[in-house]
Amino acid sequence: MSEVLLLAQRARQASRRLATTSSRERDGALHAMADALEARSAEVLAANAADMDAARAKGTAEGLLDRLALDEARLKAIADALRSLAALPDPIGEIIGGHTLPNGLELRQIRVPMGVVGMIYEARPNVTADAAGLALKTGNAVILRGGSMAMNSNLTMTRVLADAATSAGMPEGAIQSIESPDHSAAEELMGLHNYIDVLIPRGGAGLIRSVVENAKVPVIETGIGNCHVYVHEAADLDMALRIIVNAKTQRPSVCNAAESLLVDESVYRVALPPIIAALEERGVVLHGDEKSMALGAANSMVAATDDDWGTEYHCLEMSVKIVAGLDEAVDHINTYGTKHSEAIVTGDYEAARRFLNEIDAAAVYVNASTRFTDGAEFGLGAEIGISTQKLHARGPMGLTALTSSKFIAMGDGQIRE
Amino acid sequence: MSEVLLLAQRARQASRRLATTSSRERDGALHAMADALEARSAEVLAANAADMDAARAKGTAEGLLDRLALDEARLKAIADALRSLAALPDPIGEIIGGHTLPNGLELRQIRVPMGVVGMIYEARPNVTADAAGLALKTGNAVILRGGSMAMNSNLTMTRVLADAATSAGMPEGAIQSIESPDHSAAEELMGLHNYIDVLIPRGGAGLIRSVVENAKVPVIETGIGNCHVYVHEAADLDMALRIIVNAKTQRPSVCNAAESLLVDESVYRVALPPIIAALEERGVVLHGDEKSMALGAANSMVAATDDDWGTEYHCLEMSVKIVAGLDEAVDHINTYGTKHSEAIVTGDYEAARRFLNEIDAAAVYVNASTRFTDGAEFGLGAEIGISTQKLHARGPMGLTALTSSKFIAMGDGQIRE
Repeated sequence: MSEVLLLAQRARQASRRLATTSSRERDGALHAMADALEARSAEVLAANAADMDAARAKGTAEGLLDRLALDEARLKAIADALRSLAALPDPIGEIIGGHTLPNGLELRQIRVPMGVVGMIYEARPNVTADAAGLALKTGNAVILRGGSMAMNSNLTMTRVLADAATSAGMPEGAIQSIESPDHSAAEELMGLHNYIDVLIPRGGAGLIRSVVENAKVPVIETGIGNCHVYVHEAADLDMALRIIVNAKTQRPSVCNAAESLLVDESVYRVALPPIIAALEERGVVLHGDEKSMALGAANSMVAATDDDWGTEYHCLEMSVKIVAGLDEAVDHINTYGTKHSEAIVTGDYEAARRFLNEIDAAAVYVNASTRFTDGAEFGLGAEIGISTQKLHARGPMGLTALTSSKFIAMGDGQIRE
Repeated sequence: MSEVLLLAQRARQASRRLATTSSRERDGALHAMADALEARSAEVLAANAADMDAARAKGTAEGLLDRLALDEARLKAIADALRSLAALPDPIGEIIGGHTLPNGLELRQIRVPMGVVGMIYEARPNVTADAAGLALKTGNAVILRGGSMAMNSNLTMTRVLADAATSAGMPEGAIQSIESPDHSAAEELMGLHNYIDVLIPRGGAGLIRSVVENAKVPVIETGIGNCHVYVHEAADLDMALRIIVNAKTQRPSVCNAAESLLVDESVYRVALPPIIAALEERGVVLHGDEKSMALGAANSMVAATDDDWGTEYHCLEMSVKIVAGLDEAVDHINTYGTKHSEAIVTGDYEAARRFLNEIDAAAVYVNASTRFTDGAEFGLGAEIGISTQKLHARGPMGLTALTSSKFIAMGDGQIRE
């Protein structure tokens, strides 16, 4: 039997026992996991040092090295995040709906764990603890598959977390990581339809696309964001400038950062020069269409190609397009956007209303930065990721995104006539 | 461009316009569709007659011919179902949640259409009108792919429904059927990740498996039901008999019919003989394990093999197994069941409670027939299908299963600090 199938069978067994644990037991395990990460920090940091050495030897860029690095302070923050999770209300067992049927059958719909959650991710090693904690909080078994660069860190953290969870009464197999570095292991996981209830990929566009295209188990697609800010002709131009600078530059590497700027034709000659100046001052390279280029306002603007409209730069670059008005803006965004976060700046009631209704995206903003699409900002308490699909969950996902439901019905002998 | 891609692009365009229609407009279109089915019944019935002739020439069984056949009365019932749909409350625009963030940003989560729904089905031609109606009610464009045997009926009904919807102001492309009979057309549909938001297969296990394994778009798996009735040692044996006979024989071809009977070892010598007699009287062939066979109570019982425990007979056959008690029953059901509908018959409080908690299924019953798992029985008003997966929807799916949500946020210049 392959490693992945063995893990999957153990996870399925564990999920059945997890479904019968109480909140108190699971929250106790989360605290035990947090304590273990601190108590066994030397082990985790040694594994992380090995990953760092290997990454440095490969000439990995400083930015990536910093994302990979753990230290006592970061471990403490990871442990504290598990403790915060323990303090959140438990969604499991919540009664979502129900009524008594005309024949007396008492029907209730209740929230239950998903079962077995698979996570495939590229990001920092803290995702290992985050994902394990979120899954355990919601009564799910989890199978983790982190990026190869953090392999030692991830496997050691998984061992520490799983040991602590088991000692705290959770079943063996509740928290597991795939050890095989082969790509085929991830592919096998994507195919285990009978064992994995949901698969959540977190990482770059290539990873997400590969999971969506290859998985036979249900997938929640996350985190691709080609987000727009649209400056409508009735915009407060100072507000527009502040929002654009914030959406583009406050943290350019994340999915809710803006990648494209649309400006109404009737105002761009006035509106755009100060925006261009402010963005250039912050080092943003602009890819402009013909009209915006012809303004001559930019020192470093380059001509946009059609590819730019669909590009998620994830860095200090932004495309700029002049549009005839709201219709063209909505059409452009619905064509090139990735249905993540879209914003209009306007003082016009009807333009705001139409933008909110007609834009097809997880989060649609009037007069605010796209950067707010985030579980913490939205007050969800915890975030598993940001769904950019429409099935099951859309936008920032809190704990309930890791739950399913079941109907329970209590009768006294009802049969169907 | 292929037919399917053309349909998909038209559907995507239509979905954007549909998302901005009002309930009144969509309900008006549903009435127009119902009226058109009646007004153009000659056209539909002629197409159906052609399907019937072709099916007869192929020597199709009477039962299948009856499922395929349409007449004025059946068309009237189909039209009335569309009118009932128009009378249901519209889920679109419902505010699911929301609050004002500390910075003043007003956040709302609202229910929106899914976008483009794909339906692949094998069943009777009434599914064409049902699916078109459910999609339109919820503001979705739909692409239909019915079974080859009903091809003429489906295409003609689609034309009638689409004409009526367009005349009533719905966009072109809101309701479409794939005309190509090639299997490759269905496969192409399953791969159109940028155009189809959800794919719902309805039909036999082979169809469902094929869609789940080949689709790159999100799928809602439906309708596979290997359902159990478990007679606990504390069961009222008369009630057990009534429930088993109902669950097995009231309509054996459907997914919520029982396929397997489990009986506690401590009571089976008394409990089983009258159940066997009642089932045999109704023509049920029983596949028994060693102990139940040794009872000698059955005339026509055959020895069960391990395959029987996982078999959905969909006819008057049933497997019978004697179990040591609740633990074995739960373990057996969670191992061999398809997570659809499961029932225990018991008078014991703790057994009932444990069964409800520990069985992993869409619907779990105490002292009632599995046959109640159904949108109409559960009071959902309309049913798209019965989901047997855990993502998005589980169990009978009402109108909300065809909806997604989006966050809208109204601010006055908020930027992220």
